[in-house]
Formats: sequence, C-alpha cells, structure tokens
Amino acid sequence: MRATVLVRPKQGILDPQGEAVQGSLRKLGFDVSRVRVGRVLDVELAADGAEEARAQVERMCVELLANPLIESFEIQLEAE
Amino acid sequence: MRATVLVRPKQGILDPQGEAVQGSLRKLGFDVSRVRVGRVLDVELAADGAEEARAQVERMCVELLANPLIESFEIQLEAE
Repeated sequence: MRATVLVRPKQGILDPQGEAVQGSLRKLGFDVSRVRVGRVLDVELAADGAEEARAQVERMCVELLANPLIESFEIQLEAE
Repeated sequence: MRATVLVRPKQGILDPQGEAVQGSLRKLGFDVSRVRVGRVLDVELAADGAEEARAQVERMCVELLANPLIESFEIQLEAE
C-alpha cells in the first residue's frame, strides 16, 4: 500500500524557507503573495486494508514524520 | 489563486533523506519497504484564470522550484 503524506508548517508559524522562495520568485518577476514550503513523503507499507494503513501512517506522523507543535499533516492513501 | 506543487526525486535518483526516514521508521517497528522525501510548496499567485496560473507555476518550477535533472513536479490548482 502506498501513502502520500503532506507535512506543512502550521498557520502562524514562521516559514523562512517559504519567504526566501517567495522573494526569489518575485525577483524573477512572478506576482506571488505567499509561499509556504513543507515536505511530501511517499511511504510504501505493509498493511491489511486501508483503515489499518491510515492508522499506521498517522502513528508514523506523530512519532517521527511531523512535529505536531509546528506542523500539520495530511494523509492520502492509494491502493496498488 | 492557490497552487500546490509537489516536487519529488525522480525514479532512480538516490534519496538519502528518504533512506534515513525509512531506517528510522523500521527501528520504530513500522513495516515500510520504501520512503521517498520531496517538497510541497503552496503558492498564492495573481493570475487570470486557471490556464494562465498553471502556465505561470510551470515556469516557476522550471526556473526555480524544481531541478528538472533530478526532480519531477506535479501541479494542483485550487480556485479560492
């Protein structure tokens, strides 16, 4: 089973990387008002069914993949 | 207009960050066979319509956001 996890800085949390990218895009002439940068993780895991897979990936997020104080995460599951 | 850009290492390209995450997840007891790590960028831009927005974001990817030699990108548009 494959899961895609999107980890993003929470609203109100500073995102210097996003600000840097926004500044560079503006210098290149693009009219961008906001850029936020996070991570995408594609995880292939063994699980019995979608429900168990989602529960496992949620635990992965809490234990390792995201910092829940400053980041939110979103899980998308794809059957193979 | 808001665009979400997923930038991922291309197939066959080494991804040491993904390997490190996979190793850590395995040590935590998760049965993961593969992890790849990329970036997600949320971009708010001014554009006349979806078609122009997509064209602009594609140019952003080629010029700054992705390295087309080693990374692929995927663009998702959301109207506000």
